Amino acid sequence: MARIVMKFGGTSVGDSDRIKKVAHRIKTAVETGNEIAVVVSAMAGVTNQLVTHCHQMTCDQIWAGSSREYDVVVATGEQVITGLLALALQCLGLSARSWQGWQVPICTDGIHGSARIESIQSYKLLNEMTLGNVPVVAGFQGISPKESVTTLGRGGSDTSAVALAVALQADRCDIYTDVEGVYTADPRIVTKARKLDRIAYEEMLEMTSLGAKVLQTRSVEMAMKHRVVLRVLSSFTDAPGTFVCDEDEIVERHLLSGITYSRDDAKITLTKVADQPGIAAAVFGPLADANVNVDMIVQNISEDGKTTDLTFTVAKADLKRAVAVLQRGSALSFDRLIPDSDVVKISVIGVGMRSHAGVAQTMFRTLAERGINIQVISTSEIKISVLISEEYTELALRALHSAYGLDLS
Amino acid sequence: MARIVMKFGGTSVGDSDRIKKVAHRIKTAVETGNEIAVVVSAMAGVTNQLVTHCHQMTCDQIWAGSSREYDVVVATGEQVITGLLALALQCLGLSARSWQGWQVPICTDGIHGSARIESIQSYKLLNEMTLGNVPVVAGFQGISPKESVTTLGRGGSDTSAVALAVALQADRCDIYTDVEGVYTADPRIVTKARKLDRIAYEEMLEMTSLGAKVLQTRSVEMAMKHRVVLRVLSSFTDAPGTFVCDEDEIVERHLLSGITYSRDDAKITLTKVADQPGIAAAVFGPLADANVNVDMIVQNISEDGKTTDLTFTVAKADLKRAVAVLQRGSALSFDRLIPDSDVVKISVIGVGMRSHAGVAQTMFRTLAERGINIQVISTSEIKISVLISEEYTELALRALHSAYGLDLS
Repeated sequence: MARIVMKFGGTSVGDSDRIKKVAHRIKTAVETGNEIAVVVSAMAGVTNQLVTHCHQMTCDQIWAGSSREYDVVVATGEQVITGLLALALQCLGLSARSWQGWQVPICTDGIHGSARIESIQSYKLLNEMTLGNVPVVAGFQGISPKESVTTLGRGGSDTSAVALAVALQADRCDIYTDVEGVYTADPRIVTKARKLDRIAYEEMLEMTSLGAKVLQTRSVEMAMKHRVVLRVLSSFTDAPGTFVCDEDEIVERHLLSGITYSRDDAKITLTKVADQPGIAAAVFGPLADANVNVDMIVQNISEDGKTTDLTFTVAKADLKRAVAVLQRGSALSFDRLIPDSDVVKISVIGVGMRSHAGVAQTMFRTLAERGINIQVISTSEIKISVLISEEYTELALRALHSAYGLDLS
Repeated sequence: MARIVMKFGGTSVGDSDRIKKVAHRIKTAVETGNEIAVVVSAMAGVTNQLVTHCHQMTCDQIWAGSSREYDVVVATGEQVITGLLALALQCLGLSARSWQGWQVPICTDGIHGSARIESIQSYKLLNEMTLGNVPVVAGFQGISPKESVTTLGRGGSDTSAVALAVALQADRCDIYTDVEGVYTADPRIVTKARKLDRIAYEEMLEMTSLGAKVLQTRSVEMAMKHRVVLRVLSSFTDAPGTFVCDEDEIVERHLLSGITYSRDDAKITLTKVADQPGIAAAVFGPLADANVNVDMIVQNISEDGKTTDLTFTVAKADLKRAVAVLQRGSALSFDRLIPDSDVVKISVIGVGMRSHAGVAQTMFRTLAERGINIQVISTSEIKISVLISEEYTELALRALHSAYGLDLS
């Protein structure tokens, strides 16, 4: 007997037949003697529709995306699915009912459009579950201190599920999606990618932050913090999926767990920046003030001892703003500002790096052999990221995947 | 300065442009110094979609239509519009926010799918309004004693609006729809139909119960009981609309206010029923037990003194059930059971009847002149209804409309 939170994403509840299949899956879990709480997303595509409706109402004064009413509108996507799935479960003879964020309640802060969960009052749900009832909880939504409907931002349902697992002290949180688990690389690009049986929290966190779409980063952070065992699996097959767990629960170690790519970054190079103390502050201070996050940074060795070239990356979405800020920057003197958004960030990730030398070397050699020029490098204890020209994305991923021995044999 | 509840139906909020137009109308009402509360329906067609989704989930055990979860799903239609309209109002510089049934709260009983409003706590809304804010309230929905979402049944938004007007002690409740008011007859059939400036509660009540679609019957009952001045008007024109008010507020009286038709009835004739005491009980008892409402009844004069023919009407939707019940009815002996659903009920309505003789006579003569056979008759103090063959619907309506001098000159 285990207490499990089962979360189903938008494609898993994409139409009435799929909702019924999900219901059968839940029934099986209940009949094998588990205590089940369910968390659902909106039907795939519905949230985007609702967002569009909101933006049609937006104007100069009001940006819908962060408004109280935006949350009122988009939260309905999940509400509909909780009701439909509860009906489907009742038809299978289970006692089930829907729970909206305000009914649980799932208490969040008041930041509309990207609220954070502050607490979940679990006693009502626990009562239900001990009576053998199945609560179907709306993901993505909560209620603010002012008793307004809030939403957690895109992908928020993963976070709802993990937060609920924490509140219910669940043994596991199963995230059902449209892929069979976490892969060593994106299988659509790297056909030889392998599905991982297990992956450590730290690795999963790096992978999601560095481009892997399978889970929402915040949900992994939360699972890691509270040591909730996560499982990512498909709602369309019976494959066992991938466990996200503590490092020491992983028996057979690989040097690397995965290789990711992200096209969300853009590069900015400033040439002939006066090479003197305080220059970094003069560049990055104004960017920080403008809420532009700077990720990778490289400062070339100064040739003449007077000036240097400075290169760094920002989110593509922030590029325009960053350029504007830098050109305004009075305290800052440089020759040219060269923005470049045709770049991709490739990252190799694995806790095995800690104990192995030469991981970076393999990466650099492999890319060099393919004539791929590395523009920027950044590393952490368990990952190495390089910025390269976007056109090499697929080539680089496949080459590295083989070089690190990750290919399916 | 007046306090007004403005209610907008599904076609009035049918797309984003219409929602913006509605917002402008509300702004004008506010700027002319009124205190405004708004009630909205779902976008036209959306509720039907949601109902379809629910029925796709229905099974033998569960009939979705009266389930807790049905209400959870269909209530989202109104929720979306409250958010979108509030955004549109904010873009016009008004301070507005959405209110769901559970937030007001609008307290109902627990009968899902057709809940009744028991009380509305108005103090929060009144605070808003006295501060110059515009509450946008979701019609059609409420919250049950168990804190579940409930809905009032089709057309329920009219009732929400009137109930809110009562709770807010509003001076008037304006119902915005896609017609310019209440007509002497359906203008799509009777081209010479006239729009009424005023109509008495009692008349409006009869008209809605006898087929006029313009308002929901329950909302008129409530308005009459609490003497709320109703106004029916178009959200697409600036025509003044029709006031529904006390009889004595209507200066120039007509003999009739309107002529309606309803195709919702079916006729059942039982031939050679033993003409003896208790026969009515034997027929109508079992029907009542089976929740079949009987409307018009006529028992012919017995020819042989032993048997008689009995004719009555039931809702078309109940015909099958009624026939089944009667054929089972052991205590009941008759020769033949003749069901007939090709019938229409034509009604002439007007408080003027009370003081005028010959109204029925005019009706019977007019129909006779057109060779239209009257199958069943029923009357009340202020209306006369006849059941005729459905094929004569248009002919009968036009003939009666002229005969009673209602035609546009």
